[in-house]
Amino acid sequence: MHVALVGVTGYSGMILYQLLQQHPEVNQVDLYGHKNAKAQSLATAVPQFIGSQAMIEPFAAEKIMAVDQVIFFATSAGVTTELAKTFIAANFPVIDLSGDYRLRSRSSFKKWYHKEAPDQAALQRAHYGLAEFHQASGQTYIANPGCYATATLLGLAPLVQQGLIEPDSIIADAKSGTSGAGKKLAANTHFTQTNENLQVYKVNQHQHIPEIMQQLQEWNSQVPAIQFTTTLLPITRGIMSSIYATVKQGVTTQALQHAFQDTYQEQPFVRVFTEQLPTLKQVIGTNFCDIGIVFNPITQKVFVVSVIDNLLKGAGGQAIQNFNQLFSFPIASGLPQTPILP
Amino acid sequence: MHVALVGVTGYSGMILYQLLQQHPEVNQVDLYGHKNAKAQSLATAVPQFIGSQAMIEPFAAEKIMAVDQVIFFATSAGVTTELAKTFIAANFPVIDLSGDYRLRSRSSFKKWYHKEAPDQAALQRAHYGLAEFHQASGQTYIANPGCYATATLLGLAPLVQQGLIEPDSIIADAKSGTSGAGKKLAANTHFTQTNENLQVYKVNQHQHIPEIMQQLQEWNSQVPAIQFTTTLLPITRGIMSSIYATVKQGVTTQALQHAFQDTYQEQPFVRVFTEQLPTLKQVIGTNFCDIGIVFNPITQKVFVVSVIDNLLKGAGGQAIQNFNQLFSFPIASGLPQTPILP
Amino acid sequence: MHVALVGVTGYSGMILYQLLQQHPEVNQVDLYGHKNAKAQSLATAVPQFIGSQAMIEPFAAEKIMAVDQVIFFATSAGVTTELAKTFIAANFPVIDLSGDYRLRSRSSFKKWYHKEAPDQAALQRAHYGLAEFHQASGQTYIANPGCYATATLLGLAPLVQQGLIEPDSIIADAKSGTSGAGKKLAANTHFTQTNENLQVYKVNQHQHIPEIMQQLQEWNSQVPAIQFTTTLLPITRGIMSSIYATVKQGVTTQALQHAFQDTYQEQPFVRVFTEQLPTLKQVIGTNFCDIGIVFNPITQKVFVVSVIDNLLKGAGGQAIQNFNQLFSFPIASGLPQTPILP
Amino acid sequence: MHVALVGVTGYSGMILYQLLQQHPEVNQVDLYGHKNAKAQSLATAVPQFIGSQAMIEPFAAEKIMAVDQVIFFATSAGVTTELAKTFIAANFPVIDLSGDYRLRSRSSFKKWYHKEAPDQAALQRAHYGLAEFHQASGQTYIANPGCYATATLLGLAPLVQQGLIEPDSIIADAKSGTSGAGKKLAANTHFTQTNENLQVYKVNQHQHIPEIMQQLQEWNSQVPAIQFTTTLLPITRGIMSSIYATVKQGVTTQALQHAFQDTYQEQPFVRVFTEQLPTLKQVIGTNFCDIGIVFNPITQKVFVVSVIDNLLKGAGGQAIQNFNQLFSFPIASGLPQTPILP
Repeated sequence: MHVALVGVTGYSGMILYQLLQQHPEVNQVDLYGHKNAKAQSLATAVPQFIGSQAMIEPFAAEKIMAVDQVIFFATSAGVTTELAKTFIAANFPVIDLSGDYRLRSRSSFKKWYHKEAPDQAALQRAHYGLAEFHQASGQTYIANPGCYATATLLGLAPLVQQGLIEPDSIIADAKSGTSGAGKKLAANTHFTQTNENLQVYKVNQHQHIPEIMQQLQEWNSQVPAIQFTTTLLPITRGIMSSIYATVKQGVTTQALQHAFQDTYQEQPFVRVFTEQLPTLKQVIGTNFCDIGIVFNPITQKVFVVSVIDNLLKGAGGQAIQNFNQLFSFPIASGLPQTPILP
Repeated sequence: MHVALVGVTGYSGMILYQLLQQHPEVNQVDLYGHKNAKAQSLATAVPQFIGSQAMIEPFAAEKIMAVDQVIFFATSAGVTTELAKTFIAANFPVIDLSGDYRLRSRSSFKKWYHKEAPDQAALQRAHYGLAEFHQASGQTYIANPGCYATATLLGLAPLVQQGLIEPDSIIADAKSGTSGAGKKLAANTHFTQTNENLQVYKVNQHQHIPEIMQQLQEWNSQVPAIQFTTTLLPITRGIMSSIYATVKQGVTTQALQHAFQDTYQEQPFVRVFTEQLPTLKQVIGTNFCDIGIVFNPITQKVFVVSVIDNLLKGAGGQAIQNFNQLFSFPIASGLPQTPILP
Repeated sequence: MHVALVGVTGYSGMILYQLLQQHPEVNQVDLYGHKNAKAQSLATAVPQFIGSQAMIEPFAAEKIMAVDQVIFFATSAGVTTELAKTFIAANFPVIDLSGDYRLRSRSSFKKWYHKEAPDQAALQRAHYGLAEFHQASGQTYIANPGCYATATLLGLAPLVQQGLIEPDSIIADAKSGTSGAGKKLAANTHFTQTNENLQVYKVNQHQHIPEIMQQLQEWNSQVPAIQFTTTLLPITRGIMSSIYATVKQGVTTQALQHAFQDTYQEQPFVRVFTEQLPTLKQVIGTNFCDIGIVFNPITQKVFVVSVIDNLLKGAGGQAIQNFNQLFSFPIASGLPQTPILP
Repeated sequence: MHVALVGVTGYSGMILYQLLQQHPEVNQVDLYGHKNAKAQSLATAVPQFIGSQAMIEPFAAEKIMAVDQVIFFATSAGVTTELAKTFIAANFPVIDLSGDYRLRSRSSFKKWYHKEAPDQAALQRAHYGLAEFHQASGQTYIANPGCYATATLLGLAPLVQQGLIEPDSIIADAKSGTSGAGKKLAANTHFTQTNENLQVYKVNQHQHIPEIMQQLQEWNSQVPAIQFTTTLLPITRGIMSSIYATVKQGVTTQALQHAFQDTYQEQPFVRVFTEQLPTLKQVIGTNFCDIGIVFNPITQKVFVVSVIDNLLKGAGGQAIQNFNQLFSFPIASGLPQTPILP
């Protein structure tokens, strides 16, 4: 199989490229950059790929549709909106790691992304690829979920779907390493500023809030809103979403644990912990989402901790899950399951 | 003034020693260790004090009461319970950084600390030294608050005192650097395990929970409980308590901001931020507690972020505040106000 | 192929286990622990392997020789000396990651390791597995090189072999992350002590010094000694050996570069850089040793920077290289070539 | 005393401002910025100074000479060259933290700084303020030494002055935290790139090389050159210079130790260690330079490790030492001696 990848120079793109190269069903990964840029060696564009012979070719939709069977976009918000049009028109398979086609409402997109939204019909047809809950087979346009959204939704799904919590009580205190902020230089990711620090950012304004809400309301229309906070950590990789909600009267620890275990028992990439709580590090380098649950009968609140590698389960790894679904490959093909130790 | 310090070898003790040495009203700091230990040079016991000529003498209550005017305990939980008895009996001034005399209930102490509790009468007479709210002048036994308790209580005080929030809705997601865990070697503070990681610990079991509750209920008897989580950060110093609560109907952003501003306007060591949110780093090396407040009208929740240096405002710095109050020294004497930059 | 691994609970053992599991020629990895310990699940012994079904069985030499075709020792210094005896006597293939059989002289071993040395005959028969220079095929006992030794020897080989430098001028300032110090709790690897710090240790006393010297003198008997310093870094993985030596009169930049390029042109896991210098991060997660060379005509000194992942090229990765050589598998089988990004 | 400070927005300037504010002889610190900029509050320009009421006024030489008694420049290379002219012409006291007036040769400045050099007469009159060796009293223009130069020169002084080493054998492997690279955003100080990494930079091209050489040759004209390498560390503050040199025949450990002890016995800010080696952390937050010495009789090489806080002893702290000398204040006035613990 030949696949196209646009945007290999960003962190998600780099990781996705590594995954695709090692995927047993992929024979060749064709890299594409800006339409008007000259062809460039990958090793020049991304020094980390030193030694690679791969080239980044100028983006050319027709050529891609001729030589590749699917295209992955690991491009910045707003870029895919433009680039994807030709592929959408041709019903050519797209797996889009950007946020452009995740929200179904154009006005919501404009409000949260501060950019022009894609075409309404295209938005409606896009498949929200939260891999454990939505099968990508038969779809053509996969909007791969955001990193914070993935960790938070997987930590909330059983509670919301089964109505175990008060729908207006959800709070997520989410933390992320700096790779989530991308490669662009910024004052808050300067080493001297990030190191030995915690920085809260985009409070009530993070673009993953509407994405989370859209999915929660699809599961349970009674959820009115979610309180969601993001904090930048002095680490490179990883997201921890610490979730709190008020449990409905009569719901027990056992009921909560069973809800998670039942929901994920067939899912190889979500692991539920009831005895101990997962640490962030145990998922780094893997496609796992590890979830721990603690019910506090005194406060009547459940605490759920959900950890992922933001660049794998939160980006490139989930994209491979969707790729596997789309082409009916084995569910775990090409997906790393061993953490970076120690 | 001559002061005694027991427990200089722990992190809180080290910092307190530095503060006392620089305090304008302190002429001499006498260091004491175990009763049965030989006198030892500070530089030997704590290599970081290389070059110091100070000695750590064996603990001897009578001698201390003869030569010193106050004693600071920076000892581990359980140790002060024993050592303080003589001083309590003599009404000699004590500032105790341990948790031994913070809880007024013996059974609560036993439950949360898993140790024998001090004498009930002594517990009742101890003064809980949350410096912004309780004046130490006229007291003899000051129980200096815990680090997590300080950050969380200062972030909650105006909300709870003025009844601005639903009393059963309080959630604190608190994070701390490793210095809070002390000097003792442990698997979860081994560099290889802590670095590039987040580790949730003592969920619903942290000994600062009853301390926070005792104070909250003193302020507002309707608060039934608090959901409180602690996460270990890969940094050395600092606590961030991220607090969430449901705001009562009709309470506005302005009302919330005014509540904080009014409460702390006379307090030099609590700074309220309404435009931007404080970062952790801006308080490291200082005695400040910086607090930011964001009301979310969609969720009807207020988010309060409260940051302190756990070893200063959360330990040695607040001890100096209590010391200043106890002896009627100027409120900010000997307290650092310039952060460690950059 | 069935292989045995003793010592999976240490960092080198963990990594080696991951590598062996992914090795295309390995069907099964049998794990062994202490002779007198009960069988234990891997997930219990090493929480990072959560979800694994593997068991650690009590060490039993006869059983291992019956069911496995090779044994890997990832045990502490001194342990292999004992455990390996039976295998040596039986000429059973051993790949030993410990330092026990690296030095050919018993007295040298005693001096540097402060332990009883293995049997002299066994030491003489052991093969020092510096993979780029010594072919393991036909050997039975492979002493896998130390991490510092690997980085330093690969950075020195062309210079020493070809006599390009003054033999008494070699200085190596080597730095390592904390994973090199292993899992054992110690004051200098406590997070609070390691973080934001540099700690020089074992100056002129590191046990890799005689290992390096033994190899250097095999290459060039004129090398009398090496000045070698080790510094502990606040990072988890990686070694950088910064090497300095005085270049012989008449030797040019070009001659130095060619020496490295020629030496390593057939070696897939050593990459030579002449335009820019490698960073540590570009080899983490891979089996590469990346080497940069800068000649300074003013000082007549050459600076060589050699970087490796201490747990891969410096331990488990090189062990796999030796395994591939021993069994004539393709040279790069099972060896990671993509760094941990970003 | 009123003092002027130009360049408070950079890291050295920030620290120097903190030091000056706490200096017992300083009544007021007047801050100045760009000549054509409007007055701006310090808290706006440097968020870390939140709460400060200080203003940054436009630079105006005449005004400064009227109201202040000395001017500190904490400006970038090239800026002081211009701004200082008026003060030099008027013989007004200047303490310059930039590199502009450190080198006495214009051509050397141009070669290493890639900028136009200051006036030759001014360069000749500038005093190189290596505080332990050059008295600033009676001078008017103090060129404060560079951070790497300070650590390296203090570690070399006794060896070079007393001719204890072969003059052509000096090698310094120096490492620095990111604060040395300043506030400017750059790819190599982006958190994601710096964290868990080591990056060698400016090999044989660092602008502190000629500064070190100028001083070494003043001490001992036989020193022909120095091999000097710089490596960027994943920490915020601190420099370690690891120095190696060949000891002359007959020189003993004792002689080496005595040389250091004698040289620095009257110097409160240089501490010599002969039993153990200093760690980087023990000087962070202080003005100390801590030096450890180990002679290796096998290689006939001495290893000297010299550690400083690059922003204190390597910048603002040494500037205060020069300030104290210039105005005959007590030698340690306003200089921090307690490290940031733990």
